[in-house]
Amino acid sequence: MAKIDRKLLQELREQTGLGLMDCRRALEETDGNIEKAIELLRKKGAAVAVKRSGRTTGEGIVHAYIHPGNRLGVMVEVNCETDFVAHTTDLKNFVRDLCMHIAALKPLYLVPEDVDPKFIEHEKDILRAQLVDSGKPDKIINQIVDGKINKLYSEICLLKQRFVKNDQLTVKGMLEELIAKTGENIKIKRFCRFEIGS
Amino acid sequence: MAKIDRKLLQELREQTGLGLMDCRRALEETDGNIEKAIELLRKKGAAVAVKRSGRTTGEGIVHAYIHPGNRLGVMVEVNCETDFVAHTTDLKNFVRDLCMHIAALKPLYLVPEDVDPKFIEHEKDILRAQLVDSGKPDKIINQIVDGKINKLYSEICLLKQRFVKNDQLTVKGMLEELIAKTGENIKIKRFCRFEIGS
Repeated sequence: MAKIDRKLLQELREQTGLGLMDCRRALEETDGNIEKAIELLRKKGAAVAVKRSGRTTGEGIVHAYIHPGNRLGVMVEVNCETDFVAHTTDLKNFVRDLCMHIAALKPLYLVPEDVDPKFIEHEKDILRAQLVDSGKPDKIINQIVDGKINKLYSEICLLKQRFVKNDQLTVKGMLEELIAKTGENIKIKRFCRFEIGS
Repeated sequence: MAKIDRKLLQELREQTGLGLMDCRRALEETDGNIEKAIELLRKKGAAVAVKRSGRTTGEGIVHAYIHPGNRLGVMVEVNCETDFVAHTTDLKNFVRDLCMHIAALKPLYLVPEDVDPKFIEHEKDILRAQLVDSGKPDKIINQIVDGKINKLYSEICLLKQRFVKNDQLTVKGMLEELIAKTGENIKIKRFCRFEIGS
């Protein structure tokens, strides 16, 4: 019988709301894999909620900006380490500026990693097609294409955009200044931007 | 030479900001396919914006609700046919109630069609595994599974949820009442719900 870590057992109990013995047995049968244990419990008919983990972890702030006329709205979630920092003026000002920035600069993604790779491949094909008759060697063409893709990222990814209130900094740079000022790790977790007709 | 529809030509010009002759030629070469025409123009090096179509179509309203404490926020976009209806009290009340509903009932999707089919298949597998020893015929098992999946949809899809202020109606039903009252087609276009730690 495998020895089951108490912390793991506690977590499974919290996530499923099930009894100690059921959870222990499920973890034993799945070698301590919590995802598989949940699946096993569900297959056995245990009433485990599908929407698991309503648990709240981390601190932060959710802020929204609705542009006058109600045709454009932005909402952001910014995470930090303590509730104290979440309610400082520094953080409040940052999320307010961030919403304004997103309203104005219309980012589509948070970071380049979020961009659909198929979209990037398609863009690269088009850029290469534009350069194919230039007579430039392949290596140079690839460099130009990579440069243009980087420029594209800095147009559509929030963290790479120049900050609307201070174009000496990117949004990532602004965030780093805030981290230095507050002494806490701060992350822009997500954002959304709704505009009528877009 | 194919005859090019004037409306199509106008649309391509609006989307690309390019001249009449370039647009006409691109449409001729692509048999009037606007997407292909844009691609062709881009391959030829025309400076067509990647983020196309900033054009605003339709009317509507964007509304947000931030729960006291700033740990939970909801934003919705609701579309209608005229600016007049977008600014009526009926629509304003509806979007406000809708935000409250989303805050409380945590829908994950707008409609069943938005749910990942893989997730549904996985849920069906688990439900079937629960019933496999019941001795019931396959047909009955399938009926039970379908019933449970429908119940799942009514828990996680906004339009299928019971409305938080009046559980005699679904959100779809509320929307239909509003359509009847205003005499306009009204759609919930999208929503987002951010909660710290979820």
